[in-house]
Amino acid sequence: MRWAEGYIAVDWGTTNRRAYRVDPGGQCVAEMEDDQGILAVAPGGFPAAVAQIRERLGNHPLLMAGMIGSNRGWIEAPYAPCPAGLDDLAARLIWAEEGRAAIVPGLSHLTDDSADVMRGEEVQILGAVAAGIVPPDCLICHPGTHNKWIEVAGGRIIGFRTVMTGEMFNLLREHSILADLLALPATTGEAFHDGVRRGLAHDGLTAELFSVRARVLLDRAKREDAASYTSGLLIGADLRVGLRTAPEAEVIVMGRPELTSLYAAALTEAGQDAREVDGEKAFLAGVRAIVELIA
Amino acid sequence: MRWAEGYIAVDWGTTNRRAYRVDPGGQCVAEMEDDQGILAVAPGGFPAAVAQIRERLGNHPLLMAGMIGSNRGWIEAPYAPCPAGLDDLAARLIWAEEGRAAIVPGLSHLTDDSADVMRGEEVQILGAVAAGIVPPDCLICHPGTHNKWIEVAGGRIIGFRTVMTGEMFNLLREHSILADLLALPATTGEAFHDGVRRGLAHDGLTAELFSVRARVLLDRAKREDAASYTSGLLIGADLRVGLRTAPEAEVIVMGRPELTSLYAAALTEAGQDAREVDGEKAFLAGVRAIVELIA
Repeated sequence: MRWAEGYIAVDWGTTNRRAYRVDPGGQCVAEMEDDQGILAVAPGGFPAAVAQIRERLGNHPLLMAGMIGSNRGWIEAPYAPCPAGLDDLAARLIWAEEGRAAIVPGLSHLTDDSADVMRGEEVQILGAVAAGIVPPDCLICHPGTHNKWIEVAGGRIIGFRTVMTGEMFNLLREHSILADLLALPATTGEAFHDGVRRGLAHDGLTAELFSVRARVLLDRAKREDAASYTSGLLIGADLRVGLRTAPEAEVIVMGRPELTSLYAAALTEAGQDAREVDGEKAFLAGVRAIVELIA
Repeated sequence: MRWAEGYIAVDWGTTNRRAYRVDPGGQCVAEMEDDQGILAVAPGGFPAAVAQIRERLGNHPLLMAGMIGSNRGWIEAPYAPCPAGLDDLAARLIWAEEGRAAIVPGLSHLTDDSADVMRGEEVQILGAVAAGIVPPDCLICHPGTHNKWIEVAGGRIIGFRTVMTGEMFNLLREHSILADLLALPATTGEAFHDGVRRGLAHDGLTAELFSVRARVLLDRAKREDAASYTSGLLIGADLRVGLRTAPEAEVIVMGRPELTSLYAAALTEAGQDAREVDGEKAFLAGVRAIVELIA
């Protein structure tokens, strides 16, 4: 089993996993996605979970990234500290099966003032740089369950900040007093932009969130606009964090298109140029670059 | 059945209710509390739910406040707008049983910039003023599922702001990625004060919340301190809203003692004098004052 004959790239998260079969020419020729995230795999069950992937995509070497390297995953891959480039990731791979299955470490970022961690996004970010999709010096916004603001300089990740925006929206929609107001999907209409402006302008997020309900009760807002307004509010508050040092160049928004479009709209509202980049393409570029370093 | 012969005061919330039998001299002589909040009562079930109370506390007139007057309660009692005093509440009582069971309206507060509502706290606030427990001009902090910052001037409530602090802490503890870190009770030790300072100083609450986890993963903080730190962080952010116009006089912290002690400690950390007032006593004073106006 040799990497030069092709490999499988796996983005293995908390609640789902995606795997891609990459041929010797570097092209993705098959893929799968299912709900076997790390929390769905019993302790000790990862060899069998990996065998499932090989049954579907072929008996090839595997490079895995994401929560698979957390203390709840297959084998813990200690965080690589910032600044970090692809060479650091390649040098710190954890081999779950010697020579044929490796886990990419996540990154940590410690300053006097803050502590932060990521697992998975680093492969996309550095892959996009390596493939020339984004410049070697840029600010990247990577929305998801947890949005990340990532500073890239000289082609390396020099720092980042995580904001719990996606998880917060889900908590509010599923379990809070706002639940019945947040059932509709958030879209980038007027209510969303109202929310973004409010989130950018006011720092009392937990107060603004309660007012979502009060505005509807007192006929200041329409019930059907509440989800988009709340999404805008949270993303606006998120941008307050990410744009503390607003870059002159465009902000790269990387990830799944349904999320990058909301953030790109919010960035535009904040007066910031934004460009959307598909996270899947960047992930495959990152894995390819790491494989080249170890092959 | 006459009010002068005694009555029952009911604080009827979303998830529980408390009822107090008050004798003709104004003393509370019996009380009950159970989990029959409004969500536990089926539509049409409120006459039977009230009969239960009278079985236990006697066949007396009832004055009810709280979510019992919401659109999910017995009968909706439209919000009285600010500024509002006890006379406004008395004039807008909704009679669920003519002459023998009344619901106190909640308050609304609309400005060009904000919309807010309350149900239940108004009786405590105005009762405390009427009984001389708090001065007629003061800032009151009323923690609970939702914390309220209430401005009182000339003995009337002139405005207020709700912050979802308690609900947010519960959402994080029960359903979020921080859940396993937040199982311990929050106490006012060093970690709590660290959190308060952080919450007061930084406006990116959803970023600070994620760092609770990163700090533990990267050995910047102890796991057993996470609940107290997070409570402090949320309350510190709450104080940023409440102390936007910091009063020279002491802030009154009214409510249940386990919550008022956390807020009083946080206010002290913020350099603000604070005095704790028992919400139950204030509630009974408020009901007594309304009964005097209608008897």
